[in-house]
Amino acid sequence: MSFRTVADFETALRDLPAPDEAAIAAARARQAQLTKPSGSLGRLEDVAVFLAGWQGRERPALEQCRAVIFAGNHGVAAQGVSLFPPEVTVQMVANFAAGGAAINALSAAAGLDLHVVPLDLDRPTCDFTQAPAMSEAECLAALSAGADMVEPGLDLFVPGEMGIGNTTPAAALCARAFGGTVADWVGPGTGLDTSGVARKVAVIDAALAFHDQSPRTPFETLRRLGGREIAAMAGAILRARQLRVPVVLDGFICGAAIAPLAAAVPAITDHCIAGHCSAEPGHMRLLERLGLEPLLHLGMRLGEGSGAAVAVQILRSALTAHNQMATFAEAGVAGGA
Amino acid sequence: MSFRTVADFETALRDLPAPDEAAIAAARARQAQLTKPSGSLGRLEDVAVFLAGWQGRERPALEQCRAVIFAGNHGVAAQGVSLFPPEVTVQMVANFAAGGAAINALSAAAGLDLHVVPLDLDRPTCDFTQAPAMSEAECLAALSAGADMVEPGLDLFVPGEMGIGNTTPAAALCARAFGGTVADWVGPGTGLDTSGVARKVAVIDAALAFHDQSPRTPFETLRRLGGREIAAMAGAILRARQLRVPVVLDGFICGAAIAPLAAAVPAITDHCIAGHCSAEPGHMRLLERLGLEPLLHLGMRLGEGSGAAVAVQILRSALTAHNQMATFAEAGVAGGA
Repeated sequence: MSFRTVADFETALRDLPAPDEAAIAAARARQAQLTKPSGSLGRLEDVAVFLAGWQGRERPALEQCRAVIFAGNHGVAAQGVSLFPPEVTVQMVANFAAGGAAINALSAAAGLDLHVVPLDLDRPTCDFTQAPAMSEAECLAALSAGADMVEPGLDLFVPGEMGIGNTTPAAALCARAFGGTVADWVGPGTGLDTSGVARKVAVIDAALAFHDQSPRTPFETLRRLGGREIAAMAGAILRARQLRVPVVLDGFICGAAIAPLAAAVPAITDHCIAGHCSAEPGHMRLLERLGLEPLLHLGMRLGEGSGAAVAVQILRSALTAHNQMATFAEAGVAGGA
Repeated sequence: MSFRTVADFETALRDLPAPDEAAIAAARARQAQLTKPSGSLGRLEDVAVFLAGWQGRERPALEQCRAVIFAGNHGVAAQGVSLFPPEVTVQMVANFAAGGAAINALSAAAGLDLHVVPLDLDRPTCDFTQAPAMSEAECLAALSAGADMVEPGLDLFVPGEMGIGNTTPAAALCARAFGGTVADWVGPGTGLDTSGVARKVAVIDAALAFHDQSPRTPFETLRRLGGREIAAMAGAILRARQLRVPVVLDGFICGAAIAPLAAAVPAITDHCIAGHCSAEPGHMRLLERLGLEPLLHLGMRLGEGSGAAVAVQILRSALTAHNQMATFAEAGVAGGA
C-alpha cells in the first residue's frame, strides 16, 4: 500500500516535487528556433514545454502512456440519482475488458495502454447521507489502489472512472472543498431531467448537513463524501506527482477527486493538464477553481477517461511539432524580427 | 483546368450537392445504440455523423486523407504588411519539401498525405491597392490549380496555405464579403505591433476604395482582393463539394478564401468542418459568418493547414469510437431510460 496511514497521504500532499526548470528553459529555447512565427503554435507550444518540465528532458516523448479506469459502486445510488441502474457499473467493466467501450476505442487511437481496476463492486460505499462513504481503512486502500497503478518511467498517466451515480459524490466533494451553493455543482450527469437534478441537490444538501461538523481535511472529505474510484484517482494523481509523471485529467469526476486536495494545496494541479471541459455544468467552475484551462471543449460527458484520451491526441501533435520541426538555421529560412 | 471560364466557376457554386441523408440516418441510429449515455460523446458524435453523410456510408473512414499547401506571393507585401520578408514564402516551400515545417510534423501525426503546390512564386500578384490582384485568366488558373488537387475517392481534404503578407488580402476579402469595419477583420498576423496593424488597415481601406465600384460577385472579389493560394483554396473547397469530399478548414486565410463564395451561397460551407479558431482576432467573427463552430481553440495562428491537421486527430478519435464501440445489445449492458 502506497498510503498505509493518513499521515502518509498528508505528508505526500505537502511535499510535492517541482518540474525540471532546466528542461523547461531548453524546451522554450528550442521552440523559439523552430521555423514558425514565435508563439504561432499556441497551446501546442505550452504543452510541449509542460511535458519537457515534468519528463525532465528538452524533447519529451509519449511512448509509455497509461490510462486506468477505476470502477466503484455507490450506496447513494439507491436514492435514484442516476438514469442507469447500479448493475451497469459491473456490466461496463465487462465491456471494458471485452474492448467495446468508448475508452477502448479512444485509448487505442491515442496510443494509451489501458488498464481496468474494479474496486469492490459488490460492496458499494455507504450512503453518505447517513454515514461516511468509507472507513479510514477503505479510503486508504482505495487511495493506494490508485497510487499502485502509477509507475516510475511512465511518460503520461490518464486516470478514468466508471461508477453509476458518481456525479453525486463528485458534486458533494466540490461543494465541500470550494463552497458555493450545491446547485452550482450539480448537473444532469448521464441525462437526468429537472426533477432528477433537484433530487440530486437535495441528497447532497442532506449529506453536507450530516458531515458538517467533521474535520475539513482532504482525507476526511474524500473518505466521507467520495467513493472508491474517486479516492483511487486522487491517489493516482498524487503518486504521479511524486514520480513527476504528467497527468491528463478527464472530466467532472476526475477533477472533483482532487478538489479536496487542491483546496488545501493548490500546487497539486501543477503536473496536470485539463484534457477537456465537459458538458456537466459544474466542470468549468471546477476547472477555474483548480487553476486549469481545458485543452478541448467538445461537449463530452462520458467519463471513463474519454475526454482525456482525446486530448492526448493534441499532446501527440504538440510533441511531433516540437521534436521534428527544423530550426530556422537548419532550414535556411529567414527568422522573424 | 477545372474552371476554364468564370461561368464554369459560377455554375459549380450554384449547383452544390447535398450529403447522403440515408447514411446520416444510419450513422445516427448506430450512435444511439453504442454503450454510452445518448449524446455523451458530444461533438465526436456530430463529427462521425457529418463524415457519414459526406462519405455516404454508415461507418466512414479516414484512409485517403490529403493535405495540400498552396503557396503564393503578394504584390501588396511590398507595403510592409508582414513581419517577414516575401523571400520567406519560397524558403518555406523548400522547408515543406524537406519535411521541416510544422505542417510536415502535424500531417504525419494526423495521417495526412501532404502535397505542396507553389503558384508562380516569382510572379507576385499585383498590389491590389492599385489594380486587381489577378487577371481573369490568372484567377481561373489559380482556382483550377486548387480544384485539380482534389480527386474522387478522397476521404478528407485539408487545404493549407503559405504566402507572406496574406492576412492582408484575407482581411480585405472578409470586409468586402461580409461588411463591418476593416479594423474588425485586421489583426497582427505573424506578429505585427500596433502601428503595423494600423498600416494594414490603411492599406486595406485603400484597396476597398479602389475596387468599390467593381462587381461584387464571388469571382470578382477573389480576383481583385485575393491571391493565388487563396483562390486555389477556394477552388479546392468547391471541387471537394462537387465530389462530396468533406473538408477541414484551417485558419483565417482559409476561411477568408471562401468568404466571397459563402456571402453569395451560404451552403458552400455545409461540407466543411472548422478545424479550429485561430488567435487572429477576425477569425471567430469570420467563422460566425460562415455558420461554423470550430472544433479546437488552441490559440494557433500559423496557417499551412496546421490547425486543421491537429483537428483531424479529433476526427480520428470520433470515427474510432463510432466504428469500433460495442452496442448495448452486443455488450449485454442495460441501456439508459
